[in-house]
Amino acid sequence: MEKNFKITMAYDGTGYHGFQLQPDVRTIQSELERSLSKIFQSDVKIYGAGRTDAGVHATGQVAHFMVDTGRTSEQLQRALNGLVPSDIVIKKVEEVSSDFHARYSAKSRLYRYTILNRPYPDVFLRNFVFFYRYPLDIESMIKATSIFKGSHDFTSFCAAAKEEKNNTRVVMNFNLYKWGDFIITDIEASGFLHNMVRILMGTILQAGRGKYSFEKIRDILEARDRTCAGPTLPARGLCLVCIKY
Amino acid sequence: MEKNFKITMAYDGTGYHGFQLQPDVRTIQSELERSLSKIFQSDVKIYGAGRTDAGVHATGQVAHFMVDTGRTSEQLQRALNGLVPSDIVIKKVEEVSSDFHARYSAKSRLYRYTILNRPYPDVFLRNFVFFYRYPLDIESMIKATSIFKGSHDFTSFCAAAKEEKNNTRVVMNFNLYKWGDFIITDIEASGFLHNMVRILMGTILQAGRGKYSFEKIRDILEARDRTCAGPTLPARGLCLVCIKY
Repeated sequence: MEKNFKITMAYDGTGYHGFQLQPDVRTIQSELERSLSKIFQSDVKIYGAGRTDAGVHATGQVAHFMVDTGRTSEQLQRALNGLVPSDIVIKKVEEVSSDFHARYSAKSRLYRYTILNRPYPDVFLRNFVFFYRYPLDIESMIKATSIFKGSHDFTSFCAAAKEEKNNTRVVMNFNLYKWGDFIITDIEASGFLHNMVRILMGTILQAGRGKYSFEKIRDILEARDRTCAGPTLPARGLCLVCIKY
Repeated sequence: MEKNFKITMAYDGTGYHGFQLQPDVRTIQSELERSLSKIFQSDVKIYGAGRTDAGVHATGQVAHFMVDTGRTSEQLQRALNGLVPSDIVIKKVEEVSSDFHARYSAKSRLYRYTILNRPYPDVFLRNFVFFYRYPLDIESMIKATSIFKGSHDFTSFCAAAKEEKNNTRVVMNFNLYKWGDFIITDIEASGFLHNMVRILMGTILQAGRGKYSFEKIRDILEARDRTCAGPTLPARGLCLVCIKY
């Protein structure tokens, strides 16, 4: 009988064209399916909790797959970690009930965007933070986040070509704070539109630079028009922290 | 008149054959001298506080160079950071007195060795820590560090082919502690022999695995023979933290 396995993984997205399978390019899903197919000597399809864009990282991405096997979760974790490249790590494998679906069972997703705000970059974190050398007004940035809490139509914060039928999402938490030279932003929502966190951060950055007022940002949200919002910040500062079920 | 500049830098050593200039390979010194020579349109030689091996990192390596220039320290820092590759960052440039020498004025060097001790590696830190999956007894490791404090002949902990005339060094501090899943070791000494920290750590690891007793490690130090000590741990876990003057 088939068993359903939930896997929790971390990856350095620098060398990947995102999570989801695409022809002719390296993706997290393609690496995982290749490794699982080696273990089971037959094709295994995995279902991710959500796509991450090219260059975006994860510390707690989740996927599931169904296989008929006598192996334990621990044996699968060890076998997988022996086969995947060193920029992917399987942190946990758990057997779950057959109705668990990585994507549809998810209640919320938590992303973190990290800005390094000082005069010089960090060599070790250069692929994991967005480096911004000029002064930023944190209080204005914190104030701007309050605009987005709750249920809103986020069309202004969706990559233009990728609009979906329903662009309303619920933002449960949106916390921005300073930690040393870092400005860390945690955002938890029911779901995210394409590039949503990166465009939100590009807009909030404009508040920190004194370019956008609180009222202007409120207007951007209400405009439901991508061209009104700020730039899309680089993928490297973004990390999928966890999926809540 | 020539001015003497002290530079403090960080680098990700992964892509380099160490700090010191060598023919036909990429080193930190070669990148810095190339950038400085571009700025001043003439050859500039830099003097580092110490060599670091291939793959070893730094958060506070120091060097000095002398040039006749009207530029300020801040201008030099900005110009250098604009020219060096993204895995090197100049954290500080200071004008110092003409008798300052990065190497000979140094009173001590502080290195950090980081072991990640849990069942699975970390994708973001894979080039910056030594991953060891099996349990380690921290108390035995801490006890072993006490053997090395003070002035000793460290011949047993020097890469065999590289023995120097005088292998006595003074270890001022040697602190090993657990921080989450990490075992962090800070070692400060008057100077270090070739591979000294990495062989010390390989020997202390054997204490943590229960392979070497406290007495055995004391004997290794007294033997003054590299073949008695433990293995050389990988360069990636090692970082030159700072130079004290």
